[in-house]
Amino acid sequence: MNTTRRNFVKAIGATTALTLSAQVKEPVQETIRIGFIGVGNRGRGLLRGLLNIEGARIVAICDPLSINLAKAEKMCKDKGQQPKTYPNGDFDYRNMLEKEKLDAVLIATPWDTHTIMACESMQAGNHALVEVPAAETVEDCWKLVQTSQKTGKQCMMLENCCYGAEELMVLNLVKLGHFGELTHAEGAYIHEMRKKLKMSKPEHGNGFWRSHKWTKRDANLYPTHGLGPIAQYMNINRGDKFDYLVSMSSNSVARTEYAKKTFPADHHWNKTKFVTGDMNTSIIKTTLGKTIMLQYDVCTPRPYSRINLVQGSKGTFKGYPERIMLDDFKSHKWKDTENFHKEFDHPLTKKMGAIAKKEGGHGGMDFLMLWRVIYCLKHGMELDQDVYDAASWSSIVHLTEQSVANRSAPTTCPDFTEGKWQKRPAFELKNV
Amino acid sequence: MNTTRRNFVKAIGATTALTLSAQVKEPVQETIRIGFIGVGNRGRGLLRGLLNIEGARIVAICDPLSINLAKAEKMCKDKGQQPKTYPNGDFDYRNMLEKEKLDAVLIATPWDTHTIMACESMQAGNHALVEVPAAETVEDCWKLVQTSQKTGKQCMMLENCCYGAEELMVLNLVKLGHFGELTHAEGAYIHEMRKKLKMSKPEHGNGFWRSHKWTKRDANLYPTHGLGPIAQYMNINRGDKFDYLVSMSSNSVARTEYAKKTFPADHHWNKTKFVTGDMNTSIIKTTLGKTIMLQYDVCTPRPYSRINLVQGSKGTFKGYPERIMLDDFKSHKWKDTENFHKEFDHPLTKKMGAIAKKEGGHGGMDFLMLWRVIYCLKHGMELDQDVYDAASWSSIVHLTEQSVANRSAPTTCPDFTEGKWQKRPAFELKNV
Repeated sequence: MNTTRRNFVKAIGATTALTLSAQVKEPVQETIRIGFIGVGNRGRGLLRGLLNIEGARIVAICDPLSINLAKAEKMCKDKGQQPKTYPNGDFDYRNMLEKEKLDAVLIATPWDTHTIMACESMQAGNHALVEVPAAETVEDCWKLVQTSQKTGKQCMMLENCCYGAEELMVLNLVKLGHFGELTHAEGAYIHEMRKKLKMSKPEHGNGFWRSHKWTKRDANLYPTHGLGPIAQYMNINRGDKFDYLVSMSSNSVARTEYAKKTFPADHHWNKTKFVTGDMNTSIIKTTLGKTIMLQYDVCTPRPYSRINLVQGSKGTFKGYPERIMLDDFKSHKWKDTENFHKEFDHPLTKKMGAIAKKEGGHGGMDFLMLWRVIYCLKHGMELDQDVYDAASWSSIVHLTEQSVANRSAPTTCPDFTEGKWQKRPAFELKNV
Repeated sequence: MNTTRRNFVKAIGATTALTLSAQVKEPVQETIRIGFIGVGNRGRGLLRGLLNIEGARIVAICDPLSINLAKAEKMCKDKGQQPKTYPNGDFDYRNMLEKEKLDAVLIATPWDTHTIMACESMQAGNHALVEVPAAETVEDCWKLVQTSQKTGKQCMMLENCCYGAEELMVLNLVKLGHFGELTHAEGAYIHEMRKKLKMSKPEHGNGFWRSHKWTKRDANLYPTHGLGPIAQYMNINRGDKFDYLVSMSSNSVARTEYAKKTFPADHHWNKTKFVTGDMNTSIIKTTLGKTIMLQYDVCTPRPYSRINLVQGSKGTFKGYPERIMLDDFKSHKWKDTENFHKEFDHPLTKKMGAIAKKEGGHGGMDFLMLWRVIYCLKHGMELDQDVYDAASWSSIVHLTEQSVANRSAPTTCPDFTEGKWQKRPAFELKNV
């Protein structure tokens, strides 16, 4: 059974292929050929990690900004790699897809280009590794799913927060049953970034395009960092699924105040209405009856938090800072988790955590994620996150927008697995 | 203008009376005559506080349980008071209302008796001081409002959490503008009490009747401790109001597991279905566009929390443990609030906090609340919380039940002020 056939069978949900791939211990491929679309700040962060992973070969890099391309080329050269470059505008990546022999394409571009690039990458015969969110509309989520199914190529959204030492330990504790039966979880992207409004040029990074989102959509625009790990704790698309959600945004105040204080009266940020609520709060119900409270706030003066709370009939974990309380404690007090990490760190953290921490990238989670991507591809395994994850986690952007616009009315979450969630095995990181 | 006339004018919302009462500095009445309905655990806690407040005279006590009555009588006797007792069953309080000359009736009975007792107390010419929640249905909330309006008597729900040193400092910081324009807040009643299932006799306290609620309603059954202080920060019914809410409950797991582990197979808790979700999460939108996330969980192994988060365009406060971050800090880190208390404690805390702490009752908040009740009644002032607060805060029980039952559909919050919220002045603790 060759890789293509295996991926095809996997993509259509046959469990025999999963069983086969889970048993693979020897690499089936030594080198993974990667094409890179987008080497801005985020892209270069990921490139830095990949360049330190054995067997990851950067075949080509696309970026319309010469300053980005030059920096990325130098990084490659310093590590003895010489990728081809595709510098000619936003669509030169299509030439890369046509000309280069690749295994996977890594996409680290502005949000609204993710889906088309991922789909075209798969159509050209490559796995798609796409930054978050993989799509901004439900329609685009379906495109990812259908393209992956049709091409037999994998589409993994690079949700790095699934590889944090904290999240992996919680996943491990969940699997070991320490929280009992899960009932509720909470995630967030609370990250004050009003100063991105000052980023006025393409080379200034994502503030240049991200800020404009805040004038267009009232929704949870960035749900996956908080939601991804929770979806894994709860086996979403693998025994359970998102059923429906409600979403509510507060009024929009802090950006307008900031712009007034920061820019002259005739500056475009003082002539633009911000429509994204300062705080968006959503609640998702799963088909098995669990609830997920999800928040998005990138403008209120608050410390960073993804919350990362999970609770069940036997205990609760909460992040920021990490703390835990289990029934067994016979006390109603949080404990810090230092001793828990020693005992319950995920096998992947135990194996690779120290190296990942040294390599860095959001504290090592980026490196660990990329290491897993290359490991899985080398071994002909399915990637840790599949196209159903990418679609269901990303769809929250559009679904929350619909609920907010409709007086927080419940909005049905599409079943991107089309019923396969009922028979798919529980989530696990395989062959760790 | 006598007290009755003043209260009547106040109850119908005329601002002249408010202005008058706010200027009163001298007591208009030295002794406040109180009738007590319910001297179980909670009632006796409140009685203990009242017995240490000058001018509070306990005229009569009603309780159908002789053991409760005996304990309360002894407490009174130890403080030189000799109230009449009404021991003859659940309705003997009606004889007290008929026979005794009172100023106010304090009601600390099971939840489902609060409304009728408060209404009958007002109809008998007394102010009603009623434990939380003041009502369990929207219909009963309206009864409280209409009875208060008709009788000219005040109805204050005894929401003690509005008198915590933490909540009062936050209120003060809000008033001083340190958080800028408020956008969002969070409150909760997270208090693991599965062991109440073991309370099988009336004298065992509220577990005896409270536990049965969990077999009947899926809702936020106890919203006011988290919501009351937030409603004061946000001037609910006084410039803003609750507009609509959505509510979602998780499945019900922890109580069933606990009963299975704790009781024999044929015990009634092992033959009863618990319908209250382990975690209920609700989001309330105010008419001015603010959002409030409210939670209720009394069975998951977790430390106690009311969350008490409030945020605005200039900063955020969060409780459990207390921490604050303001824009001015020029850092994205929480600070602990010790220094803030020194500078920003509410004038009421500065005046009475040390005494209240010594007197106790949930850390002093009970005493402070009762002290204010007696102070306001002595001075012929309106009480700090009025019937609109009692109704709108309590109505959340029923409104969340409706939303939960209707797939989390948005549910309109009644305007108990019938439009008066638009002209009523912002919340403040008067004459402190």
